[in-house]
Amino acid sequence: MQVLFAAPESMWEEWSAPLVSACPEMQLKREGEPAGFDAIIYAPGGEIEDLSPYRNARLVQSLWAGVERIIGNPTLTQPLARMVDPGLAQGMSEYCTGWAMRGHLEMDRYAQDGIWRNGQIPPLASERRITILGMGELGRATGRMLAGIGFPVTGWSASGRPVEGIEVLGASDLDRALERAEILVTLLPDTAATRGLMNADRFARLPEGAWLINPGRGTLLDEDALIAALDFGRLGHAVLDVFRTEPLPPDHPFWKHPRITVTPHIAADTRPETAAPVVAENLRRAMSGQPILNLVDRVKGY
Amino acid sequence: MQVLFAAPESMWEEWSAPLVSACPEMQLKREGEPAGFDAIIYAPGGEIEDLSPYRNARLVQSLWAGVERIIGNPTLTQPLARMVDPGLAQGMSEYCTGWAMRGHLEMDRYAQDGIWRNGQIPPLASERRITILGMGELGRATGRMLAGIGFPVTGWSASGRPVEGIEVLGASDLDRALERAEILVTLLPDTAATRGLMNADRFARLPEGAWLINPGRGTLLDEDALIAALDFGRLGHAVLDVFRTEPLPPDHPFWKHPRITVTPHIAADTRPETAAPVVAENLRRAMSGQPILNLVDRVKGY
Repeated sequence: MQVLFAAPESMWEEWSAPLVSACPEMQLKREGEPAGFDAIIYAPGGEIEDLSPYRNARLVQSLWAGVERIIGNPTLTQPLARMVDPGLAQGMSEYCTGWAMRGHLEMDRYAQDGIWRNGQIPPLASERRITILGMGELGRATGRMLAGIGFPVTGWSASGRPVEGIEVLGASDLDRALERAEILVTLLPDTAATRGLMNADRFARLPEGAWLINPGRGTLLDEDALIAALDFGRLGHAVLDVFRTEPLPPDHPFWKHPRITVTPHIAADTRPETAAPVVAENLRRAMSGQPILNLVDRVKGY
Repeated sequence: MQVLFAAPESMWEEWSAPLVSACPEMQLKREGEPAGFDAIIYAPGGEIEDLSPYRNARLVQSLWAGVERIIGNPTLTQPLARMVDPGLAQGMSEYCTGWAMRGHLEMDRYAQDGIWRNGQIPPLASERRITILGMGELGRATGRMLAGIGFPVTGWSASGRPVEGIEVLGASDLDRALERAEILVTLLPDTAATRGLMNADRFARLPEGAWLINPGRGTLLDEDALIAALDFGRLGHAVLDVFRTEPLPPDHPFWKHPRITVTPHIAADTRPETAAPVVAENLRRAMSGQPILNLVDRVKGY
């Protein structure tokens, strides 16, 4: 099996060994005669943009969970699979839980200035409501971890399909999901329906002082409305991991805003050790004609 | 039933209503003829120090989990019960989990200075070992919450008695417990055996860059050894909630140390709403001659 590694140069060092180790029957190459490749392992930012010559490739396996940078590529005719890495769902859950705990415990209240501020203690998790927008693989894993700590978790998804232990509201109930979001975690894909979803009207629905944690997609947020919501106290704090432009430019106002914490797109980083076996499994499925896992629906966009 | 509220004046407002509501058959008073009281509800810092005139009291119920400020009182002859508040164990677990996540996710690496530091992502929880010293009610609850997130948790207790899902090492295995503590949570009572336990030798056993979270008792730590361990990089960070002197004096070096976070004894704050029913249950047991819950062992000191 000949597989093309179509990803930025910098990823080769980190990925090639785990990939070959998980799938020793594959010959992994960074270039070659396009028609000779049976599959493509893809991440955005590499040199290959025209996928049409790879006419024998039976699978394009993304190394990233988000596929918006390839799905609109008109030369993509091969089946496209998203990365659903068990390590990624776990890592995302840890990121959301850790930052939710920082907000919940009100850690930033304790300035290290010699003043003993023991007058008020935060409520227990059972009295702090969390809403998760997006109940895909990542949203469900995050919801389970937060519910395990004791938070009452509400999910929101287009389908409203229920998830064990978590109430999930459907598309028409977005306002209700936002009204109970003392901590709002947004894990939505980038689609026509989600772009700019969090606008001034939606921020106005949140309880006063709510925390926003967005490790999903930067396009979800109306940036001006976000800053206004922070400045007027509607939002207490925003933890942002994803942005319309990445890396976030050094002069972007998010960096200096006292109520915004920027993290550099680390929440959903795929870990080669846990992702490589998923790639191997899908390559084998594609070669043997079995159903491909995590196939992207071109209409839905994810 | 006549019950004396022997606690600081400032606690009366917060506690009296929940206590009377949980135990309506009690007459709760702040003063009166000592021999007329059937029980005492106690917290340190109030005016009553001589307990000998309260000869008919069948129970001294502490509102605090720690009892070191009353157990050495030579006038205490009545049975003494510690507070074991279900809300307290949950609150303590949340505190430890939140701060452990802050260390685990390496949140403080992301300075808000415009630099996009996405080169390294932290390991998953499954690759970050946590040790808890002290496997009483609080240590067990904390261990369960951390294990639920995915951390491999080791407990350490005098007895070494196992706890579901958590390996517990016994008294002689302290070094082994410390050697695996990438995050060390200390939840030990203040006893002759624990005072100064974390000294230079013990800090030297920790993995380099370990985090210490101490919401137990301030006397556990040799303060000079702690600062040396931080300055030499053995410890990465210390989160301290309890101190030899409280409030921690404004000129104490802990406040200014860049690798120490001081919180004002909030982790184990008892919440009246969840603690009052526990007090009520114990008062009824004491009155009817049933076994008292959470009775303090005067020899062990907790």
